[in-house]
Amino acid sequence: MNKYVAEFIGTMILVFFGTGTAVVTSGLTAGIAGSFVGVMAIALAFGLTIVAGAYAIGHISGCHVNPAVSLGVFMAGRMDAKDFGGYVIAQIIGAFAGTGLLQFIVSSSNTLKGLGANGYGTASAVGLNMGGAFVVETFLTFVFVLVILGVTSSEKTSSIAGIVIGATLTMVHLIGIPLTGTSVNPARSLSPAVFLGGEALSQVWLFIVAPLVGAAIAAIVHRGWFSNDED
Amino acid sequence: MNKYVAEFIGTMILVFFGTGTAVVTSGLTAGIAGSFVGVMAIALAFGLTIVAGAYAIGHISGCHVNPAVSLGVFMAGRMDAKDFGGYVIAQIIGAFAGTGLLQFIVSSSNTLKGLGANGYGTASAVGLNMGGAFVVETFLTFVFVLVILGVTSSEKTSSIAGIVIGATLTMVHLIGIPLTGTSVNPARSLSPAVFLGGEALSQVWLFIVAPLVGAAIAAIVHRGWFSNDED
Amino acid sequence: MNKYVAEFIGTMILVFFGTGTAVVTSGLTAGIAGSFVGVMAIALAFGLTIVAGAYAIGHISGCHVNPAVSLGVFMAGRMDAKDFGGYVIAQIIGAFAGTGLLQFIVSSSNTLKGLGANGYGTASAVGLNMGGAFVVETFLTFVFVLVILGVTSSEKTSSIAGIVIGATLTMVHLIGIPLTGTSVNPARSLSPAVFLGGEALSQVWLFIVAPLVGAAIAAIVHRGWFSNDED
Amino acid sequence: MNKYVAEFIGTMILVFFGTGTAVVTSGLTAGIAGSFVGVMAIALAFGLTIVAGAYAIGHISGCHVNPAVSLGVFMAGRMDAKDFGGYVIAQIIGAFAGTGLLQFIVSSSNTLKGLGANGYGTASAVGLNMGGAFVVETFLTFVFVLVILGVTSSEKTSSIAGIVIGATLTMVHLIGIPLTGTSVNPARSLSPAVFLGGEALSQVWLFIVAPLVGAAIAAIVHRGWFSNDED
Repeated sequence: MNKYVAEFIGTMILVFFGTGTAVVTSGLTAGIAGSFVGVMAIALAFGLTIVAGAYAIGHISGCHVNPAVSLGVFMAGRMDAKDFGGYVIAQIIGAFAGTGLLQFIVSSSNTLKGLGANGYGTASAVGLNMGGAFVVETFLTFVFVLVILGVTSSEKTSSIAGIVIGATLTMVHLIGIPLTGTSVNPARSLSPAVFLGGEALSQVWLFIVAPLVGAAIAAIVHRGWFSNDED
Repeated sequence: MNKYVAEFIGTMILVFFGTGTAVVTSGLTAGIAGSFVGVMAIALAFGLTIVAGAYAIGHISGCHVNPAVSLGVFMAGRMDAKDFGGYVIAQIIGAFAGTGLLQFIVSSSNTLKGLGANGYGTASAVGLNMGGAFVVETFLTFVFVLVILGVTSSEKTSSIAGIVIGATLTMVHLIGIPLTGTSVNPARSLSPAVFLGGEALSQVWLFIVAPLVGAAIAAIVHRGWFSNDED
Repeated sequence: MNKYVAEFIGTMILVFFGTGTAVVTSGLTAGIAGSFVGVMAIALAFGLTIVAGAYAIGHISGCHVNPAVSLGVFMAGRMDAKDFGGYVIAQIIGAFAGTGLLQFIVSSSNTLKGLGANGYGTASAVGLNMGGAFVVETFLTFVFVLVILGVTSSEKTSSIAGIVIGATLTMVHLIGIPLTGTSVNPARSLSPAVFLGGEALSQVWLFIVAPLVGAAIAAIVHRGWFSNDED
Repeated sequence: MNKYVAEFIGTMILVFFGTGTAVVTSGLTAGIAGSFVGVMAIALAFGLTIVAGAYAIGHISGCHVNPAVSLGVFMAGRMDAKDFGGYVIAQIIGAFAGTGLLQFIVSSSNTLKGLGANGYGTASAVGLNMGGAFVVETFLTFVFVLVILGVTSSEKTSSIAGIVIGATLTMVHLIGIPLTGTSVNPARSLSPAVFLGGEALSQVWLFIVAPLVGAAIAAIVHRGWFSNDED
């Protein structure tokens, strides 16, 4: 049970601090230069949520905090189907808790707005179309999950795995925020889309499907070429 | 005795470099974009004070440098009441020394002003009201102390704990600076408020109470669900 | 065979995320301040590709992802000629794959352009001439490869080598982007030059030759003064 | 002899990349917001020179690359007088080599200027007077050397010492650049001052004396309260 509580709290932390830094940035900056500086801060915040979560709850649940990560770990043969289901449910509930807390903060301020939704087409800062967005989310999640499976497969690197995975998530966001707002995580995308509705909700399917596809490819590639798992 | 000296010097470093980077930023930048860039530098500076302190004095006192952290450690059963009292006193004196040194630097310059106080309402960069500020400070401190208790509970991660805790404090500041200026540390908030008086002093109660509440919740959650302490 | 697949994927990641962050930055920012903020994000992205790659594929191939690095490792006596050739071929193919994927993303957007080519003279942001560019690329690669040979020569630092090498690549880019766009990697320079043609292609020789010269000097200096290799 | 070569190369790297990032920034940015963004990049570059140097040459010489650091290590009883003299000479020659190489790059460009000198009074970005500058340089060097002596006194943290010390140097620069340009290193200050002459040269005494004073205090405090040295 403790591991589901851990995934709930971890995903809440990811969504609150990650999308929350995007939201508070929108309250402070204006203009093109300002929004770019925001990319650095938001990318760093998302990465740091993994560092924080990995060392707060990682020893309990492994700190997946992402259904795509859990899918990759499951397909790599490192978790069973029951836990996979329990993790995903806890992650989705945690994401809604994080977005709910953020919504409360936004409503307690007189300048903040938005909840950090993902999007493509006119919802992309650089006008990336649906096909481009699908490829981006698939490839970014592929790389992210490939790093996770690599760094956690050796005892030697396990103590710094949280730092490495967080750094990779920052890298993924530096390029992904201008393109799609960066999902690579179905739970992180679902909760703001449900709160906001409209275009965010009608596009959310892509940010659920593409990350899962990318994670599945990563699990296959890792098992095929890069595995040194002892088990 | 050495550990109280360590907490004194560590808290002085935290307050001087953390709030000091905020103050020198205010001397350099102007306008909305500029103040946001400042968030990155200030958030990084606060995080790095923990990295520096953890490896300069951590082997002596554990580098709490924060009464909320000491409360969490005390409630987790890892320090006794006498040390808790001694730590808090040393931290408060250290914070005043840090703010005093910063005040001297400000008075030696012809452009700098302010001492990095926290605030809500009109003192919040995004107009966050009192209720929102209380929730923010409580939740941010909860996450910060949860990470501290997690990463320090295992021998395996103890050598990198300072880096993880510093990274978490940077994460906390990235979202918190626009909201309240980020306290999560009663000692860090008290000394600039006393130096400045006025609104900073009349609001300081929130930045003492909310972090202590958040730390207490973290200690309870850690003990209930995430503990793997050997002792 | 697995190690060549690893070098292919690793170099694809390096080129896609590194030059890709440069390309998406150009779609967002405008003016002098904006392009400088871009330097931070691009420098960080390049460094993080090494962190990600080192822990995803490092245990398979060592994550050279750079012909200059492979030359340095070869000259330091740590790999044989056959592997050196195989690595370089895999790296070049991987770089073209990364640039190809980036080209697809650019063509799927209505604002993005460019592929992150290197250059000197009028193609340098600060108007650095050919002689200056040659010296810069030689010295930057010398330092980069010297760090790689140093940090990987001891078992004690091997688990954090990916972080150290990534940090060094970020340092190299912070100064190098304004000067030449930073190559220090013939494969990373070749693929955008071939895609773009024109001046980028006519100048690419410098970004192949100078990094190889720098890497060779690093191998000689490391072996002469700083080696503590057990083998 | 190898350790003097190491200190020569390490200090050359520190000066070239640290002050060089300041110089290339000045070629790119304009206005107040731009110069602040520069603080982040320059602070990061200086910190990363220590990360790079520590793992390239640290196993040979300890990577002091700073006469104030060598003084602290000497006063802490960890090096003999002959080595102290040899280190300082190698560091000063290395700093001149780094500034000389940077001067060549500047002269190969048609926009760059300056060599990253330190200063106070009208040479301080915030108009800090001489007394304030002396206190700042003394306190910043005190903290920097205190961290160095702490993190290198335990075998447990020795493998990550380079990262911790580099992070601390970044922290020191975030607050110090707006105040004095940040020295904390007599060798780093001397070479640009000699190249530039004028006010930079007439003020350089402060950036030699104050860092040495700060380092001496750090050695005394470390030995008195925070030492757990086995020797």
